[in-house]
Amino acid sequence: MKILAMDTSNQTMAVAVIQEQQILGQIQTTVNKNHSKSLMPAIENLMAAIEMKPSELNRIVVAQGPGSYTGLRIGVTTAKTLASTLNIELVGISSLKVLAANCVGQEAWIVPIMDARRKNVYAGGYQWQDGELVNVLPDQHIAIADLLEIVADKNVYFVGEDVQKFQTEISQLPAASCNTVLSWNYPNGVVLAELGAQAQPQTIETFVPNYLKRVEAEEKWLESHEAGDESYVEKI
Amino acid sequence: MKILAMDTSNQTMAVAVIQEQQILGQIQTTVNKNHSKSLMPAIENLMAAIEMKPSELNRIVVAQGPGSYTGLRIGVTTAKTLASTLNIELVGISSLKVLAANCVGQEAWIVPIMDARRKNVYAGGYQWQDGELVNVLPDQHIAIADLLEIVADKNVYFVGEDVQKFQTEISQLPAASCNTVLSWNYPNGVVLAELGAQAQPQTIETFVPNYLKRVEAEEKWLESHEAGDESYVEKI
Repeated sequence: MKILAMDTSNQTMAVAVIQEQQILGQIQTTVNKNHSKSLMPAIENLMAAIEMKPSELNRIVVAQGPGSYTGLRIGVTTAKTLASTLNIELVGISSLKVLAANCVGQEAWIVPIMDARRKNVYAGGYQWQDGELVNVLPDQHIAIADLLEIVADKNVYFVGEDVQKFQTEISQLPAASCNTVLSWNYPNGVVLAELGAQAQPQTIETFVPNYLKRVEAEEKWLESHEAGDESYVEKI
Repeated sequence: MKILAMDTSNQTMAVAVIQEQQILGQIQTTVNKNHSKSLMPAIENLMAAIEMKPSELNRIVVAQGPGSYTGLRIGVTTAKTLASTLNIELVGISSLKVLAANCVGQEAWIVPIMDARRKNVYAGGYQWQDGELVNVLPDQHIAIADLLEIVADKNVYFVGEDVQKFQTEISQLPAASCNTVLSWNYPNGVVLAELGAQAQPQTIETFVPNYLKRVEAEEKWLESHEAGDESYVEKI
């Protein structure tokens, strides 16, 4: 099975093609400011470099969120379009799981973190159990203080580029450590492709990003309106 | 310090740019047949993707061997040319050490292997000691049988794409295991760059690949001639 994987859920853009137990190629850039401009060219360059035609692909894997709203929309839209056009399988994988899966050999709870501003994070908990990466704490949008309380009595291993922003808070936990392997802090296309190889294909038409949080405008509106209040439709 | 690293010592082409404790970008392809054609375009594409000019670079790091003769010549020549033209530092790192350095957290002797045909391999032994990857068995061209004898009483961890070719032989060792992490079997530009960041710069003019073995024609000639016999010069 030939798999094309892509992750644009944050500043890093990661693209990879694998076939069974072989990497064919990957591109990873961490300083992209415009995934909408760079994702398709990166895919085309990579496919050309490994001399593969899109029609040879069997599956598209995409990091489904959480992450940057814009980044997720670009990744998910590109992935859906490719899967639909090529009539091949589509699989979404948690962007947090992709980071956790970098951390080979860790026995602690692996806690990938993405900054969600105002002392909030996107985070989840993962653990290797018999060679499988198991979700032990659901991906969520949570205050960093609340997250640290939840994992306070655990042996935890934080990973992700944003971990350094919360080092003061984390250092107060009794049994926490932070990843020091440079490449593990970035989403990796090969790791994403491997996770996607083991997952069940999803329905393309109904596939949407897992934002895990409403956009701010939507949240503010909901604060000032009752649930089920659809009056804004009339107003507009 | 901005570092450009490249490894073309075997079929994989790995290129990366890092800056201190940040990955800026990397490209890795494993099915290239022509590094001479693809290396410079890959470097140019990567530099363009991360919006960096060559003049911003401070150091070039190259996998210096062992490996494919042609691959090493392309990598080393490109690296020397860039370092010399840009007037920046050049560092060579063992191609075997690059593979060993993938294996984070391994306590065993890490033994990277490259097939050198006719039941011979390029191999070395590495071990993590206080966070440093230490060479415990020099890189060498050796018969697989002799290598296995040397490490027979050690706890060893084999890594590299070619390990699978010697699985029958390796399985007879009492305390050997083979790497199962997909990405660890391939040279990685980021890992190479990190190793190169810690090493001392070398003299560009005298920098040559570490082949570790003479080419076959040269070996055959030496077999049939005494050392110091320079008569072939007269004959030609």
